[in-house]
Amino acid sequence: MNKNLFILKIGGRVIDDPNVLNQVLDQFAGITGPKIMVHGGGDQASQMGEQLGITAKMVDGRRITSEDTLQVVTMVYGGLVNKNLVARLQSKGINAIGLSGADGNIIQAVKRPVKDIDYGFAGDLTESPGDNLVLELFLKHGLVPVCCPLTHDGKGQLLNTNADTIARHLGIALSGKYSVTLVYCLDKPGVLLDPEDINSVLPLLSPQNYQQLVSSGAVAGGMIPKLDNAFAGLRLGIKRIFLCDWRDITGSSGTKVSLS
Amino acid sequence: MNKNLFILKIGGRVIDDPNVLNQVLDQFAGITGPKIMVHGGGDQASQMGEQLGITAKMVDGRRITSEDTLQVVTMVYGGLVNKNLVARLQSKGINAIGLSGADGNIIQAVKRPVKDIDYGFAGDLTESPGDNLVLELFLKHGLVPVCCPLTHDGKGQLLNTNADTIARHLGIALSGKYSVTLVYCLDKPGVLLDPEDINSVLPLLSPQNYQQLVSSGAVAGGMIPKLDNAFAGLRLGIKRIFLCDWRDITGSSGTKVSLS
Repeated sequence: MNKNLFILKIGGRVIDDPNVLNQVLDQFAGITGPKIMVHGGGDQASQMGEQLGITAKMVDGRRITSEDTLQVVTMVYGGLVNKNLVARLQSKGINAIGLSGADGNIIQAVKRPVKDIDYGFAGDLTESPGDNLVLELFLKHGLVPVCCPLTHDGKGQLLNTNADTIARHLGIALSGKYSVTLVYCLDKPGVLLDPEDINSVLPLLSPQNYQQLVSSGAVAGGMIPKLDNAFAGLRLGIKRIFLCDWRDITGSSGTKVSLS
Repeated sequence: MNKNLFILKIGGRVIDDPNVLNQVLDQFAGITGPKIMVHGGGDQASQMGEQLGITAKMVDGRRITSEDTLQVVTMVYGGLVNKNLVARLQSKGINAIGLSGADGNIIQAVKRPVKDIDYGFAGDLTESPGDNLVLELFLKHGLVPVCCPLTHDGKGQLLNTNADTIARHLGIALSGKYSVTLVYCLDKPGVLLDPEDINSVLPLLSPQNYQQLVSSGAVAGGMIPKLDNAFAGLRLGIKRIFLCDWRDITGSSGTKVSLS
């Protein structure tokens, strides 16, 4: 039987609110066994871009990564957010190590081909269960990877890659060696039957439920790529995927995404 | 006999000039065996600080690290410079991994005590030959650490630490297990007998020479802490220390610092 691996993806308010972040880090520190954190940048990349006079351009919830924007996200995701998370986890006794996809060559991506929209320096991943010897080495030695949403193309170019996708990618890549639990920690406590009612969490989401909720409009916007990611992750080897908020990052009080 | 370890420190023009940087990275990629790169931030941290309206304050060649400045150096050293160096080394077939002192807890520091000057979030290191199990693990597995000049205090606080000092610190820490060569790659080809004449490189610098050159004024400014670092490093276990410029990073055409 494979060993358990816990992957937590955080972003949005969890990163922007220091009190919420601290509670999440405390819970994460308390989880035993191999674990990985994947983080987005919250609003900090947009704020820093604005301070530098670079306006964030978004299409369908995805950032258009100009050369200037790539510089900003490299600074904010790879530097400011990542290194502070690592330092804070270290203070809680976790031997965290901050990584972009370039570090140890853990995640190579391909610059997104231009079709209708030119996303700029956005990196797309191909998914396949397989080896990730560097991450396995770290996990085996008690290091806790903290991964920022940057990848590289192997030719010297950094690329900006969605953090949800990175979390799924790592879950799949490590599913050959580990029994992977992936938790997406959101700003709300799971998939809501009524978007206005945080007490309407759906405990279990099947592909059938999902289609109905998309049709009814209960699931919309950024939740759609997130859930597409989740179902694809389960099909490609991740054992358990949960959506929850910061109050309980084990996911047990949130939504469990299930193929059946 | 201990295995060789090559540590290269780069900064200044080497980082700021893309052509020079590329030549240095090519040479570094060609060096066989375990190796580590340590980098400063060139002028990029000051430039970014200015863009953000934060003026760099320097005393005796050392930056005063206000909270704002710490944010800037965390972004620029830990993100922009470090991740781009890693991506470029990866493109040259080197399995580089970017690290601050917080990552893998490789370098803990103490916030510099306030005496006459408050240096802010500046981290001081204590030097002792000993273990650095995380770095040894990486080197053993063919990973090439690329270290930025950030450390942490173990209590969640990042600190800004001089890159020359970090290079020396790592050389000393690893001298128990490796025969360490440390090369400081400068903007000039070594210690010059005549500061105006780049052909006046002193091939060998002893503590006696050094005192004479300081007295005569030939060695001054930022070279003094650099050479103090070098002599201390040799006394504490580093086998060979060279100062050179980017044309030949092995140091053989530069200045060899020697205790005798």
